[in-house]
Amino acid sequence: MKNTYRIVYNCPDQPGIVAAVATLLSSNNGWIFEASHHSDHEANWFFSRLVVKADSLPFDLEELRRQFAPIAERFKMKWQIIDGNSPRKVALLASKGSHCLSDLLDRWRSKDLDCEITCVICNHEDHRGLVEWYGIPYHYVPVDKNDKAAGFAKTEALIDQYKADTIVLARYMQILPPALCSKYRHQILNIHHSFLPSFVGARPYHQAWQRGVKLVGATCHYVTEELDQGPIIAQDTIHVSHTQTDRDLERLGKDVEKAVLARGLTAHLEDRVLVHGNRTVVFD
Amino acid sequence: MKNTYRIVYNCPDQPGIVAAVATLLSSNNGWIFEASHHSDHEANWFFSRLVVKADSLPFDLEELRRQFAPIAERFKMKWQIIDGNSPRKVALLASKGSHCLSDLLDRWRSKDLDCEITCVICNHEDHRGLVEWYGIPYHYVPVDKNDKAAGFAKTEALIDQYKADTIVLARYMQILPPALCSKYRHQILNIHHSFLPSFVGARPYHQAWQRGVKLVGATCHYVTEELDQGPIIAQDTIHVSHTQTDRDLERLGKDVEKAVLARGLTAHLEDRVLVHGNRTVVFD
Amino acid sequence: MKNTYRIVYNCPDQPGIVAAVATLLSSNNGWIFEASHHSDHEANWFFSRLVVKADSLPFDLEELRRQFAPIAERFKMKWQIIDGNSPRKVALLASKGSHCLSDLLDRWRSKDLDCEITCVICNHEDHRGLVEWYGIPYHYVPVDKNDKAAGFAKTEALIDQYKADTIVLARYMQILPPALCSKYRHQILNIHHSFLPSFVGARPYHQAWQRGVKLVGATCHYVTEELDQGPIIAQDTIHVSHTQTDRDLERLGKDVEKAVLARGLTAHLEDRVLVHGNRTVVFD
Amino acid sequence: MKNTYRIVYNCPDQPGIVAAVATLLSSNNGWIFEASHHSDHEANWFFSRLVVKADSLPFDLEELRRQFAPIAERFKMKWQIIDGNSPRKVALLASKGSHCLSDLLDRWRSKDLDCEITCVICNHEDHRGLVEWYGIPYHYVPVDKNDKAAGFAKTEALIDQYKADTIVLARYMQILPPALCSKYRHQILNIHHSFLPSFVGARPYHQAWQRGVKLVGATCHYVTEELDQGPIIAQDTIHVSHTQTDRDLERLGKDVEKAVLARGLTAHLEDRVLVHGNRTVVFD
Repeated sequence: MKNTYRIVYNCPDQPGIVAAVATLLSSNNGWIFEASHHSDHEANWFFSRLVVKADSLPFDLEELRRQFAPIAERFKMKWQIIDGNSPRKVALLASKGSHCLSDLLDRWRSKDLDCEITCVICNHEDHRGLVEWYGIPYHYVPVDKNDKAAGFAKTEALIDQYKADTIVLARYMQILPPALCSKYRHQILNIHHSFLPSFVGARPYHQAWQRGVKLVGATCHYVTEELDQGPIIAQDTIHVSHTQTDRDLERLGKDVEKAVLARGLTAHLEDRVLVHGNRTVVFD
Repeated sequence: MKNTYRIVYNCPDQPGIVAAVATLLSSNNGWIFEASHHSDHEANWFFSRLVVKADSLPFDLEELRRQFAPIAERFKMKWQIIDGNSPRKVALLASKGSHCLSDLLDRWRSKDLDCEITCVICNHEDHRGLVEWYGIPYHYVPVDKNDKAAGFAKTEALIDQYKADTIVLARYMQILPPALCSKYRHQILNIHHSFLPSFVGARPYHQAWQRGVKLVGATCHYVTEELDQGPIIAQDTIHVSHTQTDRDLERLGKDVEKAVLARGLTAHLEDRVLVHGNRTVVFD
Repeated sequence: MKNTYRIVYNCPDQPGIVAAVATLLSSNNGWIFEASHHSDHEANWFFSRLVVKADSLPFDLEELRRQFAPIAERFKMKWQIIDGNSPRKVALLASKGSHCLSDLLDRWRSKDLDCEITCVICNHEDHRGLVEWYGIPYHYVPVDKNDKAAGFAKTEALIDQYKADTIVLARYMQILPPALCSKYRHQILNIHHSFLPSFVGARPYHQAWQRGVKLVGATCHYVTEELDQGPIIAQDTIHVSHTQTDRDLERLGKDVEKAVLARGLTAHLEDRVLVHGNRTVVFD
Repeated sequence: MKNTYRIVYNCPDQPGIVAAVATLLSSNNGWIFEASHHSDHEANWFFSRLVVKADSLPFDLEELRRQFAPIAERFKMKWQIIDGNSPRKVALLASKGSHCLSDLLDRWRSKDLDCEITCVICNHEDHRGLVEWYGIPYHYVPVDKNDKAAGFAKTEALIDQYKADTIVLARYMQILPPALCSKYRHQILNIHHSFLPSFVGARPYHQAWQRGVKLVGATCHYVTEELDQGPIIAQDTIHVSHTQTDRDLERLGKDVEKAVLARGLTAHLEDRVLVHGNRTVVFD
């Protein structure tokens, strides 16, 4: 949101955290626009996200960070303060399937995604015209199965070149190398075409059809070194019946995939997703 | 929740509210177990609910209220502090249909509803044995259509006698008199067998069938003087198709009704529902 | 579906209908690929849709129609037999909002919509580049509020020129004149940005926000002379909470709109929607 | 449904099946009240369920079966014809948890379940008073962990004594011996407190919480010799968030469990569930 700062932090739980932060703000007449808190009592961990009106404060972002730092240190916080005027820089990675890519591009054009889409990187040429119509650079980076490292190196170079801080695997059908997953920890979002942890791995719709399930689903999660095991951000399911073939399940599943990916990405872009261990807090 | 205090308040929005409350607590070493905040920017109104561990404070509930009062006055709060050890006292009102009644009784017995069910008041004798098996007093209070006032007077007397603070219309098929609705403002919950504001009034499932809708729903709301117009607490819908008759819609609708009523009542019992105007804030 | 015929009919219910049709097919060794039947016992009306493998029959479509005609006459059927190799010809009408348009174009390109999109008619220039990238003719037809008839006449001429048999109002923000609605009876699909019959008319998301509903929905229906009153084909809802503004409801509602419109259109294109009075039968 | 016959069959798919069955009925002036067909093209298998008005036929059930038999033989059908006036005889098995038991009893009393509940068999005494209030015999059959066979033998004897044809595991926390599962093949329904195939085995809500899923679900399936692997009849899920503990997931999950079990059982009682291999066809 324009003209706001987002203060996002998490730390061991103890009395006094909210008071310290709120007092810093109120003593400077800061207006809290949104406030979300969560205590995980099993992990004894506290999570918080505040949105403050920038012009209610008598100083700038740097000064806010400077004054916040001692509180952060006192409570051993992992923290950041984000300028709401600086949208995140996103790189979209895609393959042949276009439903998630097309959906995200339209949301972005309609101003329903608060970010800059810096580039689309695709291991096929198929979507160049579409992407370029939106005014976004398109990079065809094939991943040769006999030399995957070359393709991933080029991908990584592009991400760096565009200074992307968020990478979205919009049905990108390649498994990223572990080093890349580590480098962009909690910055890479994937949409898995199944209700994880069911049907991990290949052809989940066929697996689902064979098992005769009455629902298919999709999962948006952060990518970690371990395939399909990263922290879950959003999930949904849709009812299916015996009348659907596995091809139909795939078609219906696409609707869930694009909706769930967009929901997860929206939360990420607004810094609503906080990760602790392998679990997420996603503030509404 | 046992051994907690729930601080619930709402007031005009302005800087400093959270800081004042949090500082009162932290300066007494109070442990905030749950915290929820919401700012309605259209109404410029602030809502908050805090759950504090009772034994983290060096004083009792009366002293907490005494110390909270000046803050409440300063910010013009509507407020209350509830003792988590004192469950709410509920009166259930029912008619012939048993699905909501039976559902709530089982949840209560299973300790999934944190309340005392003080009595069941019914305008039919049908459920006496069931209710008494649960150890709950059963009162048969017919409402004669030529003298409804008598029935409602008796109902009101029972509610007073049992000191009930929450009245649940568990498919009670009588329209309460306006005076009773006013007396128990935001304390009477109804389950409307439709997705309000659709199909207000009689025979909503038949109306829905005739309109050929593809979903039926239910709405839990507070009862106000104006029929079916009170603040909405919870809603849900279920898919239906041409294969269902209006009798089938009614049967399927019952499932939604009992689930939605239980969800709304659970939120109410935990003081998660804050009302401002005709809209609710329902904290997760 | 390729190489199939779809036999779709409805008529007063009586014994012998299925036997007559099935015997015609089986006596010619016809293979029924899909069969759906429905009896509306309140209206005493029978609905059926059969998909037959074309090459299982010893004759062509014209001969099938010729042999079917006496059965249709006997049972007073409204009927048609559609060649699965001849996809329907669709005209998309749109305004400034792109979410439904973009969604349908991607589904069509991905071969998830079995139709020919003959043209896009829009009362704004905004989407020309996008639509033309898909290789579809784009017609800018403004509707001047002081002379709406001229715009609608041009729209109708285009529909005729492209021989479109299906018209999709993909968030087209104009109300079609009654004569056009009559001419294309049960051929014009609209997506209404609300769960009909709630919030008929303008600004439904604002109405929904003001009423404080906990769900927003969308309805796909055939357009009739009476605004928002046509037969309902598909509906869905999504949960919302107090944290959402009316702008957020609109954004979330778009997801439901595009999913519901696509679902309704898919059913229409496969001749799964049968209308009787103001109600639909939608075969899975 | 009263005064109807249900003809249910499945067989290898080929032309002429529907015609043969429909002609038998129509030549006797039989009125088909409901008709459902499904072709599984991967298995090349045909499934059908017809509901015929009993008094439209000039003969009784035995004669209908006699005339149907040659058709069944010709098409190698697995088939049965059920008298709609003879509700199925159900045995409910339960443990300490009451939510499914209580829910089914209320549905039965409200005439929303078309069956006879012959008895409740429970490995705890807890629910005797409740069950007996409904006028249903209650049998306390403990399952001693050092001699499970004795408990199961007694259970089997009771099922036989009551001539139950349907056994419902309403959160019965014991694993039935394989021989019992085989004996009542496709007659034992279980509700699994998870969205199968996720979280097979013990403590699924804790598993779900640990994995940080954003949905919990439940699955109604037929019990087979292989634990949690039988044909799935119905499934559903519900959204959860970080605010819920595993105890909360369990509480929310119960709502899904009872709704899904009731849905699966209703379909079973109306002979809407046809099994082929490990997959079901569930006709609406």
